[in-house]
Amino acid sequence: MKIDLAFSPYELEKKDLQGKAVVVIDALRATSTMIVAFENGCSAFIPVLTVEEAKKLAADRRDLDLLLGGERRALPVEGFHLGNSPRDYRPEKVKGKVVIMTTTNGTQALIAARGAAEVFIGAFLNLSALSHRLIEAGRDVIIACAGEKGFFCLEDTVCGGAIVDRLEKDGAAISESDSAMAAKVLYEYFENDIYRMLLESEWGQYLESVGLGKDIRICARVDSSRLVPVYREGKIFLDR
Amino acid sequence: MKIDLAFSPYELEKKDLQGKAVVVIDALRATSTMIVAFENGCSAFIPVLTVEEAKKLAADRRDLDLLLGGERRALPVEGFHLGNSPRDYRPEKVKGKVVIMTTTNGTQALIAARGAAEVFIGAFLNLSALSHRLIEAGRDVIIACAGEKGFFCLEDTVCGGAIVDRLEKDGAAISESDSAMAAKVLYEYFENDIYRMLLESEWGQYLESVGLGKDIRICARVDSSRLVPVYREGKIFLDR
Repeated sequence: MKIDLAFSPYELEKKDLQGKAVVVIDALRATSTMIVAFENGCSAFIPVLTVEEAKKLAADRRDLDLLLGGERRALPVEGFHLGNSPRDYRPEKVKGKVVIMTTTNGTQALIAARGAAEVFIGAFLNLSALSHRLIEAGRDVIIACAGEKGFFCLEDTVCGGAIVDRLEKDGAAISESDSAMAAKVLYEYFENDIYRMLLESEWGQYLESVGLGKDIRICARVDSSRLVPVYREGKIFLDR
Repeated sequence: MKIDLAFSPYELEKKDLQGKAVVVIDALRATSTMIVAFENGCSAFIPVLTVEEAKKLAADRRDLDLLLGGERRALPVEGFHLGNSPRDYRPEKVKGKVVIMTTTNGTQALIAARGAAEVFIGAFLNLSALSHRLIEAGRDVIIACAGEKGFFCLEDTVCGGAIVDRLEKDGAAISESDSAMAAKVLYEYFENDIYRMLLESEWGQYLESVGLGKDIRICARVDSSRLVPVYREGKIFLDR
């Protein structure tokens, strides 16, 4: 199993995804928030690129009881039901609901991953479950970091490195690209204190500065979920 | 002093370079080769993007006794005087000469760096000299990895991390971006065997496979040069 890693959606767009399994990671916070939402009974997410697109889709499908979720510069969007904080996605709000979601980086990575054979949602919350699912899939893997505005970000790369580490420990015979290997080295450096790494990352510091520091602790709950949401035909949902 | 790192010319293009010092790194092999060439008395390099551009420039300026150097897929270009191997740039060939140079990744990084206040040429060969020069410059720094076809490559990032490490050890008060910090962590992981890291990197393996393995040992000669070439007004030369 070959394993490669893209630091940003831009890099992902340039890679050949055909026949491959892609794991999309936006550890602070979009993919972590989605996993929390599914744990709380959410039915599906529909990722869209823009706020306008989200509003139009919600208006067109009033029959579906859709919710609008997402952020711009980490903050909730005016008129939306939910932000991008995992604390927003409580059972009483999201149970059985479909959420139209737009976030700055996570959504772009998802859209860029569409050519892959399978797309999975990853975060620190579901590392072990992800590893098992990838081994079961038996495909070459590309880890797709959402990054920050098209650039590298520390937390997604470390999370990607954690997946490489889990795959190795679970006995997968993998050959790593330079970037996957570098991510694993970074993970090994930070693995004893993922929360601190998240807190001290550039984006973690920004979240803290706008009063969203509590979310970081939730995103640091390694292996707290057995769920591996899939992204298929424009929707994110649980297929088992 | 803020220190940031771009994994590729694409990332560099998106950064604000105004007033900053940029260090361009293409450790395997372009910037290492340039440093070796300057050690051997080469007078200057003129980096250009394409083979055609190189040939045209040489034809237009027959008065200057120019040499053509560079590579495509690591191999010499037909009709050129020099490849991209440091072993090509022997004193008897390059002393007092100006080389028009085109390489796949290194040249792109140089061109992308042109908006900066100062641009320096970096490699493992001149780490300590670079650190002193950057401290003297007193500007915020962006380390520009040439990368591989627009992507991350291990060896340039580790070399970038080595610069961050040197700056710290030389007492510079620096604040690191996520990417600069990650590069430093990677450097600390590999610092005891830079040659092996180069050899086992994807590009190192490719060089080995096309019979250019000897170059890797030359590119691993940490601190073998006190020279810090500058890139200014389209030319790379020694300004002191």
